[in-house]
Amino acid sequence: MGTTSLAAARMGVGSGEILGLFRDVAEGLTKAEVVSRTGLSRTTVNQRLDGLLTAGLLIPSPVDARTGGRPAGRFVVNRGRGVLLVADIGATGLRTALCDLAGEVLVERETRADVTEGPQAVLSVVDGLFAEILGVAGHAPADVLGIGLDVPGPVDFASGRVVSPPIMTGWDRYDIPGWFAAGYDCPVLVDKDVNAMAYGEHRLRYPDVPHLLMVKIGTGVGTGLVAGGRVHRGADGAAGDVGHIQVHVDDVDEPPVCRCGNAGCVEAYAGGWALVRDLRAAGRAVTTVDDAVGLIRGGDPLAVRLARRAARILGGAIADTVNLFNPRVIAVGGQLAHIDEQLFAGIREIVYRRSLPLATRNLQIVRSDLDPHAGVLGLAQLLADGLYTPERVQELVDHAVDHA
Amino acid sequence: MGTTSLAAARMGVGSGEILGLFRDVAEGLTKAEVVSRTGLSRTTVNQRLDGLLTAGLLIPSPVDARTGGRPAGRFVVNRGRGVLLVADIGATGLRTALCDLAGEVLVERETRADVTEGPQAVLSVVDGLFAEILGVAGHAPADVLGIGLDVPGPVDFASGRVVSPPIMTGWDRYDIPGWFAAGYDCPVLVDKDVNAMAYGEHRLRYPDVPHLLMVKIGTGVGTGLVAGGRVHRGADGAAGDVGHIQVHVDDVDEPPVCRCGNAGCVEAYAGGWALVRDLRAAGRAVTTVDDAVGLIRGGDPLAVRLARRAARILGGAIADTVNLFNPRVIAVGGQLAHIDEQLFAGIREIVYRRSLPLATRNLQIVRSDLDPHAGVLGLAQLLADGLYTPERVQELVDHAVDHA
Repeated sequence: MGTTSLAAARMGVGSGEILGLFRDVAEGLTKAEVVSRTGLSRTTVNQRLDGLLTAGLLIPSPVDARTGGRPAGRFVVNRGRGVLLVADIGATGLRTALCDLAGEVLVERETRADVTEGPQAVLSVVDGLFAEILGVAGHAPADVLGIGLDVPGPVDFASGRVVSPPIMTGWDRYDIPGWFAAGYDCPVLVDKDVNAMAYGEHRLRYPDVPHLLMVKIGTGVGTGLVAGGRVHRGADGAAGDVGHIQVHVDDVDEPPVCRCGNAGCVEAYAGGWALVRDLRAAGRAVTTVDDAVGLIRGGDPLAVRLARRAARILGGAIADTVNLFNPRVIAVGGQLAHIDEQLFAGIREIVYRRSLPLATRNLQIVRSDLDPHAGVLGLAQLLADGLYTPERVQELVDHAVDHA
Repeated sequence: MGTTSLAAARMGVGSGEILGLFRDVAEGLTKAEVVSRTGLSRTTVNQRLDGLLTAGLLIPSPVDARTGGRPAGRFVVNRGRGVLLVADIGATGLRTALCDLAGEVLVERETRADVTEGPQAVLSVVDGLFAEILGVAGHAPADVLGIGLDVPGPVDFASGRVVSPPIMTGWDRYDIPGWFAAGYDCPVLVDKDVNAMAYGEHRLRYPDVPHLLMVKIGTGVGTGLVAGGRVHRGADGAAGDVGHIQVHVDDVDEPPVCRCGNAGCVEAYAGGWALVRDLRAAGRAVTTVDDAVGLIRGGDPLAVRLARRAARILGGAIADTVNLFNPRVIAVGGQLAHIDEQLFAGIREIVYRRSLPLATRNLQIVRSDLDPHAGVLGLAQLLADGLYTPERVQELVDHAVDHA
C-alpha cells in the first residue's frame, strides 16, 4: 500500500492533484466529495487532507456570510498562506500589486516610469513599490511565494529574459529573475504584457473560452493568444506580434518608418506613438498618447480622421489574425480602446467583411473590462497556476509533516 | 490495495498510461523499466502487463534483425492487433491507406476524384478503395480500429462535419462519420487536410518541435498549425486560413475575385487555380495545376513571372503568420512546392525581411518530404493517439480479462 501510494503520488494522484480539485471551488469540498471525485479510498483521502491541513495549504471553510454558520467538514484553499507580488511594466508607467494565493489583488500601487531608462532604474522602482505594499499589508518578504512581471516586449519565457525588444533600451538579455533573488526566495516569472493580459481575460472573464485573442492598442500594438486554454508564446516568445505586420494604405505614397526599422507596419499608422507623431506634424499640441486620445474624443477633425484610419488598419490586421487563429473572443485593451465610437465600429466592419463567415459567426469583439488591471491580474493567475504543481505541493506537505 | 489501484486507474496510472509508455520506444521495455519509469510496485506492474498481454495490446519483443536473438523479457506494442483506414481527399484526387496501429502504411491506393461531385460520390470511391486494401492485406472490417479522413475545407472536428466549405459543393454539414457507421464499428475522425499534414510532419519528422506551420500550396492555399504539440483548430475549425488573407499587389488595378467571394485574397493570386486562370487568359494551353507547374519548370517566361509574383505574395502572408504564431519550422507542401527555385527563394526573402529577427533567427523553411503522403500519415498518427486513451485501453483489457 505504501508503495502504491508513492507511485500514485509520482504519477499524479498526490497532494498537488487533491489541492488542485479545490482551486476552482469557492465553496470548498468535504472529504466525501474528494473521495467521490478522485475514486481514492477514504484512508488515502484522510492522509492527503491531513498533510495539506498540516502544511496550511487547506483550511476549514470560513463562516458563510449568508447563513452565519460554518459549513461542517468543508475545506477550502488557504488563500492567505502567503502572497504574490506582481508588476505590469508599460512603456511609460508601471502598476504593482500584492495578491493572495488565488490571485485576488489586496493592495495596488501605480507610478510613472520610463521603460527606456533601463532595467536597473525601472526595477528599483518596482522593488520600492513591492516593499511598500508588503508593508501596507503587514507581510514580510518571506511570505512571498511568487513574483511575476510583464514587460512591453518579447520574452524568453524559460529564462525570464527580455529578448531583442524594439522599445526597451538596455533590457536585452537582462537577468530580471536574478535582480529579485537577493531579496526574495521564490520563483520569478517574466512574460510579455499582452500574454499576461490575455491569460487574465481567459481565466477571470472567459474561463470557458479556450481560444481567445487579446489586442492591446497603447503606445504600440500587440496581441496575446490563448490557445487551448494556454498562452501561445511560440518558439522564441515572439508570437502575437501583430504590430509589425506590414499593411498597404491607399492614400499614402511613402509608408512611415516604424520603431522596428521597417516601414509600413501596423503600429507605424495605428499605434499611439504614430498618432502623436501625425498630430504633432499637423501642429497639434500633443505629447502623450493620452493627449491624442483626448483630441480624438474631443472631436478634433484631423484626430478623428486619423483614428478612423487607424481602426481600418487595425481591423485588417485583426481580420488576418482571425483567419489564422480563429478565436471565439477578441478583448481589446490599451489607452486607445477608450475611443469606443471610432475604433470598435471600424475594427468590426473590416473583420466581419474580410474574415471567413465560419470564423466570425460566433466571434465576440469586446472591450477588455479588466483593463488596465488585466496585466497584474493575469500575472497573478499565471503565478497561482505555478503554485499548484504536484512537486511544489508535495515539498510543502513533506516539510510540514516532517516538522509537525 | 484494490481500492487504491482502482483510484490509480481512474486518475491516470491505469493500463492506458502503461501502454502509452511503450508507444514511442521502438525497442520495447522490460518489466523492470516499467517499474522504474512509473514508480509503481512490481506487483502492480505485473498485473497491468498481464492485462495488456491478455488483451493482445502488448506482445513479447520480436527477434532482433541485427543480433538474430529475441531480447529476453522485453515487450512491445502489438502494432498488428488491428488496422487503421485513412483517406486524404483533395480537390481533384484522393489517396487511401491501410496502416498498422503505429500508423505505418501497409497498403496505399490513390485515384482521381472530383470533390465537387459531392459526398456520396466521393465517399463511395473511398469505400471501394477501403474494401480493396483490406482485401489485399487480408483483413476484415472487424479488424479496423479507427477510420480517418481529411478534406480540403474547414471541419467541425467534434462532429466530423465539413462546415461552409468554399470549394466542396454539397458537403456542407454532411455526416461523414455516419456514412461509415454501416460498414465499420470504430471511431471516425475527420479533419482539414493541412491539419493532418501538419500533425504528420510534427510527429514523424519534427517530434521535438512543438510549434510548426504546414503550408500547402496546391489548387488553393492553406496552413495547418501545431501549437504546443497539438493541432490548433481554433474555435470553429477555421484556423490556418492563410489563403483568404487580403493582400495588396502594386501593379494590379483591379484585385482578382477569389473563390470565396472576396477580392484580392492570397490564393486569388498564388493558388494553383489562379495560376491556371492567368495562364489560360494569356492563351497558354493549360487545364490543371500540374500543367501550370510544368510550364513554370519548363521556363515559360510568363509562367515564371507569375510564379515569382506568387512567391512574393505567399512570402508576405507567411511573414504575417510568423509574426503572429512564431513557429520553429515551416514545412511547405502541395503541387507548387515542386517549383523549388522560384518559390522558396521568394518566400524566404520576404519572410526574413518582414518578420521580427527574434522570430526568424532559428526558423527553418523546408519542403515537406512526407508530401504527398503527409495527409494519410498525419491521419494515422491522429488515430493512433486516439487508440491510447486510458478509457479505451481499460475497456479492451477488462473485456479480455473477463473472457480469458
